[in-house]
Amino acid sequence: MSIRQETRRRLMLFCGRSAPALSLQIAASLGVELGAVDREEFANGDRACRYEESVRGADVFIVQTAAPPLDAHLVELLVMVNAARLASAKRVTAVIPRFFYAGHDRKSRPREPITARLVAAMIERAGAARVLTMDLHAGQVPGFFSIPVDHMTALPLLAEHFRERCAAEDAVVVSPDTGRTKLAGRFAAMIDAPLVVLNRDSRSARARGTPAVIGSVAGKAAILVDDIIDSGATLVSGAAALRDAGAARVLACATHGVFSGDAAARLAGSAIETVVITDTVPLAGGRDAANVEVLTASGILADTIANVFSDTSVSAIFAGANELF
Amino acid sequence: MSIRQETRRRLMLFCGRSAPALSLQIAASLGVELGAVDREEFANGDRACRYEESVRGADVFIVQTAAPPLDAHLVELLVMVNAARLASAKRVTAVIPRFFYAGHDRKSRPREPITARLVAAMIERAGAARVLTMDLHAGQVPGFFSIPVDHMTALPLLAEHFRERCAAEDAVVVSPDTGRTKLAGRFAAMIDAPLVVLNRDSRSARARGTPAVIGSVAGKAAILVDDIIDSGATLVSGAAALRDAGAARVLACATHGVFSGDAAARLAGSAIETVVITDTVPLAGGRDAANVEVLTASGILADTIANVFSDTSVSAIFAGANELF
Amino acid sequence: MSIRQETRRRLMLFCGRSAPALSLQIAASLGVELGAVDREEFANGDRACRYEESVRGADVFIVQTAAPPLDAHLVELLVMVNAARLASAKRVTAVIPRFFYAGHDRKSRPREPITARLVAAMIERAGAARVLTMDLHAGQVPGFFSIPVDHMTALPLLAEHFRERCAAEDAVVVSPDTGRTKLAGRFAAMIDAPLVVLNRDSRSARARGTPAVIGSVAGKAAILVDDIIDSGATLVSGAAALRDAGAARVLACATHGVFSGDAAARLAGSAIETVVITDTVPLAGGRDAANVEVLTASGILADTIANVFSDTSVSAIFAGANELF
Amino acid sequence: MSIRQETRRRLMLFCGRSAPALSLQIAASLGVELGAVDREEFANGDRACRYEESVRGADVFIVQTAAPPLDAHLVELLVMVNAARLASAKRVTAVIPRFFYAGHDRKSRPREPITARLVAAMIERAGAARVLTMDLHAGQVPGFFSIPVDHMTALPLLAEHFRERCAAEDAVVVSPDTGRTKLAGRFAAMIDAPLVVLNRDSRSARARGTPAVIGSVAGKAAILVDDIIDSGATLVSGAAALRDAGAARVLACATHGVFSGDAAARLAGSAIETVVITDTVPLAGGRDAANVEVLTASGILADTIANVFSDTSVSAIFAGANELF
Amino acid sequence: MSIRQETRRRLMLFCGRSAPALSLQIAASLGVELGAVDREEFANGDRACRYEESVRGADVFIVQTAAPPLDAHLVELLVMVNAARLASAKRVTAVIPRFFYAGHDRKSRPREPITARLVAAMIERAGAARVLTMDLHAGQVPGFFSIPVDHMTALPLLAEHFRERCAAEDAVVVSPDTGRTKLAGRFAAMIDAPLVVLNRDSRSARARGTPAVIGSVAGKAAILVDDIIDSGATLVSGAAALRDAGAARVLACATHGVFSGDAAARLAGSAIETVVITDTVPLAGGRDAANVEVLTASGILADTIANVFSDTSVSAIFAGANELF
Amino acid sequence: MSIRQETRRRLMLFCGRSAPALSLQIAASLGVELGAVDREEFANGDRACRYEESVRGADVFIVQTAAPPLDAHLVELLVMVNAARLASAKRVTAVIPRFFYAGHDRKSRPREPITARLVAAMIERAGAARVLTMDLHAGQVPGFFSIPVDHMTALPLLAEHFRERCAAEDAVVVSPDTGRTKLAGRFAAMIDAPLVVLNRDSRSARARGTPAVIGSVAGKAAILVDDIIDSGATLVSGAAALRDAGAARVLACATHGVFSGDAAARLAGSAIETVVITDTVPLAGGRDAANVEVLTASGILADTIANVFSDTSVSAIFAGANELF
Repeated sequence: MSIRQETRRRLMLFCGRSAPALSLQIAASLGVELGAVDREEFANGDRACRYEESVRGADVFIVQTAAPPLDAHLVELLVMVNAARLASAKRVTAVIPRFFYAGHDRKSRPREPITARLVAAMIERAGAARVLTMDLHAGQVPGFFSIPVDHMTALPLLAEHFRERCAAEDAVVVSPDTGRTKLAGRFAAMIDAPLVVLNRDSRSARARGTPAVIGSVAGKAAILVDDIIDSGATLVSGAAALRDAGAARVLACATHGVFSGDAAARLAGSAIETVVITDTVPLAGGRDAANVEVLTASGILADTIANVFSDTSVSAIFAGANELF
Repeated sequence: MSIRQETRRRLMLFCGRSAPALSLQIAASLGVELGAVDREEFANGDRACRYEESVRGADVFIVQTAAPPLDAHLVELLVMVNAARLASAKRVTAVIPRFFYAGHDRKSRPREPITARLVAAMIERAGAARVLTMDLHAGQVPGFFSIPVDHMTALPLLAEHFRERCAAEDAVVVSPDTGRTKLAGRFAAMIDAPLVVLNRDSRSARARGTPAVIGSVAGKAAILVDDIIDSGATLVSGAAALRDAGAARVLACATHGVFSGDAAARLAGSAIETVVITDTVPLAGGRDAANVEVLTASGILADTIANVFSDTSVSAIFAGANELF
Repeated sequence: MSIRQETRRRLMLFCGRSAPALSLQIAASLGVELGAVDREEFANGDRACRYEESVRGADVFIVQTAAPPLDAHLVELLVMVNAARLASAKRVTAVIPRFFYAGHDRKSRPREPITARLVAAMIERAGAARVLTMDLHAGQVPGFFSIPVDHMTALPLLAEHFRERCAAEDAVVVSPDTGRTKLAGRFAAMIDAPLVVLNRDSRSARARGTPAVIGSVAGKAAILVDDIIDSGATLVSGAAALRDAGAARVLACATHGVFSGDAAARLAGSAIETVVITDTVPLAGGRDAANVEVLTASGILADTIANVFSDTSVSAIFAGANELF
Repeated sequence: MSIRQETRRRLMLFCGRSAPALSLQIAASLGVELGAVDREEFANGDRACRYEESVRGADVFIVQTAAPPLDAHLVELLVMVNAARLASAKRVTAVIPRFFYAGHDRKSRPREPITARLVAAMIERAGAARVLTMDLHAGQVPGFFSIPVDHMTALPLLAEHFRERCAAEDAVVVSPDTGRTKLAGRFAAMIDAPLVVLNRDSRSARARGTPAVIGSVAGKAAILVDDIIDSGATLVSGAAALRDAGAARVLACATHGVFSGDAAARLAGSAIETVVITDTVPLAGGRDAANVEVLTASGILADTIANVFSDTSVSAIFAGANELF
Repeated sequence: MSIRQETRRRLMLFCGRSAPALSLQIAASLGVELGAVDREEFANGDRACRYEESVRGADVFIVQTAAPPLDAHLVELLVMVNAARLASAKRVTAVIPRFFYAGHDRKSRPREPITARLVAAMIERAGAARVLTMDLHAGQVPGFFSIPVDHMTALPLLAEHFRERCAAEDAVVVSPDTGRTKLAGRFAAMIDAPLVVLNRDSRSARARGTPAVIGSVAGKAAILVDDIIDSGATLVSGAAALRDAGAARVLACATHGVFSGDAAARLAGSAIETVVITDTVPLAGGRDAANVEVLTASGILADTIANVFSDTSVSAIFAGANELF
Repeated sequence: MSIRQETRRRLMLFCGRSAPALSLQIAASLGVELGAVDREEFANGDRACRYEESVRGADVFIVQTAAPPLDAHLVELLVMVNAARLASAKRVTAVIPRFFYAGHDRKSRPREPITARLVAAMIERAGAARVLTMDLHAGQVPGFFSIPVDHMTALPLLAEHFRERCAAEDAVVVSPDTGRTKLAGRFAAMIDAPLVVLNRDSRSARARGTPAVIGSVAGKAAILVDDIIDSGATLVSGAAALRDAGAARVLACATHGVFSGDAAARLAGSAIETVVITDTVPLAGGRDAANVEVLTASGILADTIANVFSDTSVSAIFAGANELF
């Protein structure tokens, strides 16, 4: 004599403090409401959060993105993951549109930390069973985890944007430095344009302070592509070098528009005509600029969450292109 | 044919951004120099640190305390611990005068996080082999770790301060709420004074907004004692209730003076004559007040580090009293 | 072409040797039969147990409580958890009405073990996915686990008992020592009575051997409250002090009635009128006494198990009060 | 507002390169198709495999057996388990008819590796949630895992074969060395025949190079039984000794017919009339011999997989005899 | 500027409650004093222990053997290991002359626990860095650990005893059941005597209740050998069968003399002339018998501890024979 | 009374079957002898190894490189590491000149394994405390470990070779595909030559089957640089494209010369004048070619091992350039 019950799964979506607008859009796309969280911020800086409804047995997705204040958002994510786990959620998935410390994924000097690796270990230790993230700086980062990572990409979204606006024969795709060449090469193939590389490592480039342009841009619309735009300095100096090398127009795109410091002003005053990004990082606090165009990644995120929840292929959403970088 | 060498150990002391002054005092007491760390803070909020000298094979101690911005200091500690470990330090000890999220050590409502437990897990996962910390909120917190924790206490230091200044017969020791009674009882025994308890949980106390005073304070010097002073609100309302109950003077002490928000002003304008704390949290940014007296805990910290390094008993420093709460 | 099946869950309840009567009551409340276990005790002291029916895929709950012989029951619990896990139970929950070594949750002297922490690690390592336990000595103990812990409380049950029997205006609630003040304060609020504290740490109390009574008890019904009654010595000396201080009646209650040694006789011969406990520990072997009243906790345990099984909120059973201590 | 779905499980069966024929038979018995895997073998020896269909949420069984090249098959198993896990399979079961390095389960000389233990740790670390294996060399090997191991046996299959062919009164069962006596004793009981033991450890046996025959074989059909036949040398020398001791016929059986080196020829030229094995290791590459008879273990494997998938008792398949050795 | 110190190691030896006499002998052989432990046994059955001197940085060896009450001694060992680790011992070695639950090393029926495996996991989780144990029931048990296990053997000691007392030509060595044949074969080779096997599994043996004797014992001194003597029933029935089969004398030996229940009386009244054991389990409480001879294993234990401490080969103590079973 | 001893460390160097010549050179540079290992290869493919001398307390370095048969060498490394650890080596370092499955460090298609990550987990689980490896394919791979990884590089060795042979003004450095651009850029800076990139991803390059040359090579000595040369096909097609684009000479270099299949013949017959590699992979079995020049990496390896042993900075050997890629 024992009790038997059918098993049903229940999707619940929560968000941290880093991306409320994006999370609401994801929730709307999914047709769910964002779960209620009671947040408190103590005068001493301790931050607490408490789920206001039972998450017992639920398939919990928590959205948090690497936006400032970075460390506070990271710790909040860890706390939320751990609290959901200890409150008996069946499975907790961390949805991290822009990954934390994604650029710190290797030692570039002796005794440097590999912070992205540490972040991965922390998320795993806090109790996440899975991570969803988008356009990582390096394809090796999922190897920092021992839990499954579903990698998403906004590159096709960006490529489609440019395919509609630039004739391929008039465009070249430009890698802003040697470390982004593979990404740029892939993007160039998507819009069927030649590839150009900027090299900042040569002795003369270092001396001049402007990158060498490898390949021909004369008379072309040069599209700089990167995973992230941070201070914008790399793009601005690249754009200048491209104009000097005869480019007719300079455009730029990236998945993550961090725009830190006075990036917005710097980009607005640069040779770049338009900068296209997505909304994985909110452009709050005057970080927006006239020549910036923002596409939404919420559809990609919602589709991925839905497929993860229902055990449907995620790579099918991207026609397999999500892993290709 | 093999190569043989003697093994020698080497103590290296580093600090994070939270407590430079305290760390320098510890270093001076130990007779070492603080190790050099190259810090960078990126416009986007990423913070990096890099050891500027080899830590290979060293017995590394890293000082970081729970001072604001809390999460940034916590993440910096984790990064420094992990970087030292991966840079081949022999053993990494996290020295945390005030523990992070020490007050969040249990669920007080359903689905609350136990953040102190998570912090412990993170520190351990980052690679610390040992933790040194002082006057924890609860004696159970070392059980959150599976590595050794050396617990230190400043209570004897504070008790000695009051023994020199108050005649025991004129003093009572007051627990500011029911959860601190054991600590206050111990402190009362140290200075041989009666114990009084403030109860904030009764229906009438909640209605009135002032605690009930259990025990007699009339004509006495009432010494409120706690592990931490945060906003100061608990002490201030307690002091008022003590004065109403006839206390001749009200004094207060605690190991950790966080003084968040307008605590300094609140304490300065209260019925409390003097507030005695230690320097486990720096009183930067106008958080100091006229009636606050600061004792240094650096001697205790230096002695403990020295004994840990040389495999000498730590409890001997405290005559066994460090575990007694 | 693959095989698909619906997933159903199946609750199975087993018990160890420590609490057969309580387990049968839980089973009856749940409407299940206790699962069959083949036990053998070898002449050399090895004890074996074997599930007589398949537990494959089942949601297994194992009831074992900290009753003597403690270590044998602890090891039996570990063995049963591990055997169920290796026999392919889907999830194993350890139901531990009184936790093992609950009082050994911190170092109170140097080099003391934190045995409750070790017990937690052992249960987790044996393969438990979850723990259910009741009225722990300290709210921090769930932090010793990295699996979810559902904490239950019998305090409302005890409070209701006294609310029906004592007029609140005539009663005071007494904390038997400074370490139980918070618990007693909470209980006092439940029955809306004032709080009194016994202090055993002062020099005079130590000299006299009787605790100091902080607060007024004259003419009142004094209710001593604790999580556990072990040898009863604390309560008996407390009761004497309360009578000396003028209490009209002395009553006592606790969740766990261990009654070790000659506790029953000691309590029967004391100033305590009635001692109210629950059945989390069986009162076998002449450990019962005339002035002891036993309430059953089986309803609380059965409700909690049922809700855990069906992914329903556990805190709702206690109106959120289960975490509040 | 949340999304709810029923949970369904889906069995998927894949195989490595070691046992394609056996795997196809298992698939046929189960009524499923083998899942598609894209394999590549690079010129440099790197071997890759990729699941060609989504395994998300599936209950994945991967068949790989310890056949040469052993290490390549072991690594392939680990890679397949890990890839399935990271591709979000719900549960991955390693089905290993003959376990890898099963004979290396203890140190027999100082500083020897316990490779079977290492293999177990690797399989577990790669992400397997369960292992199915058959007729291990020692009953202790499941203890090398902390995940559930379902042990299968072909002994009843072999016993039935001989019961049909030999009158029990004419047969004796022979343990080929002292380490296999318990297995042989069990087999003898299955076919109700006396037990005989060969001892190779005595000084005279070592001097002679032929084992001592303990027990009487004169005029009997002597059936040598082992878990594995490798080079065949043990059986061949045993058979000679048995013939010298007067055995009328010598037969042999084992679950795993590895037949390494020139085993087939050696057995064909020996005093052994018939050697009965199962197909847990494919007899490819001229390793077959005229006097070898092969029974299929695919039915046992398919039944076990089916019961594991549907949470039905596995020991019931073997009437409990699977654990008995 | 950093502090440097030479590293020195310090051996400290402690013992649990199970084997005080043996531990004192080991200490004497090593030339150290047993470390002081403060033990308390509470009325409720909780048992506490506290190191009375600092173990910081020491190489700690803790002796505890599987003697009754088994579970209490096991838990005490775990507590002592853990407390030493958390008190900052550099390395903790569990010295377990007779291993706990050594016979429960495999499932012999479905859903049985593999308790020896669980014990291994517990010891490791408690913080032991190494285990020393003697004459395990199965050579696979060290594979239950992922820490180093140094296996010791008393077989050469026992063999030497019989070599001095029995002429090899007059002796046979007898395995008391089929599972001990390899051990007996090895012992037979040590004293250069033939091997005889008792089979209890055959249908007729089961019917009769006496084992079949395989091999010839007529007129011989038959020496039964086992790793452990527990109730003695196996030896007594074996001895009877050997006398029936014409053995001139029956002798017996084993490393571990548990002698549970009325084993001593049973052996004293049996056909066995002398039973030789070692002192790995104390023969307290009337468990001694007239025909029992006890050799001390303390020398072996002390030598092994000394070599482990000084990084000297352990197998050299046994001429490599310690792993050979 | 306790025993005290000084601690001394002892370096021991062992090698697996993959690189005996290189290991002997390392040993010679270090001034030690290679430790003795007893290897056995069974007919069934099982491979065993046993340390012939005690490694107790030693600092053990084991050299094994990713040479064919890859999986057998990988398993041998894991077995050797684990056996050394269980034989009580103090610390085991895996020295892996060419890392196993280094190219499989990310998913490039859905459901692909990240085999390099799995290899890292296996090495760590086997018991290695540290890994030394050279010129990894991606700088992120050390993040796959949670133990310290010391990364070595032969790029300065190769750069010095070309600096002595080519005038910088006449040379260009060529990245053979977009994924190697950063490496090539760094190498170009080392020899102060311009950078050229080959793009194989564009639609026309795919159609043509020859890469696009980005940048100018006319009349120059074009030096192709990579971390590894495997089949050589990439280099050969690249060299053809460079000659078509007007390069005067084509040279090539890489750290790891795997030369699988008919790579040697392919390179010998190509447009490449000289191919410079190091000896991290032995060129056995006719894999050598006339236009191949081999530099030895043994000095770098020996220096690194020596510094790791003596806790001296490793990055100092490379002037910090070892992490820079």
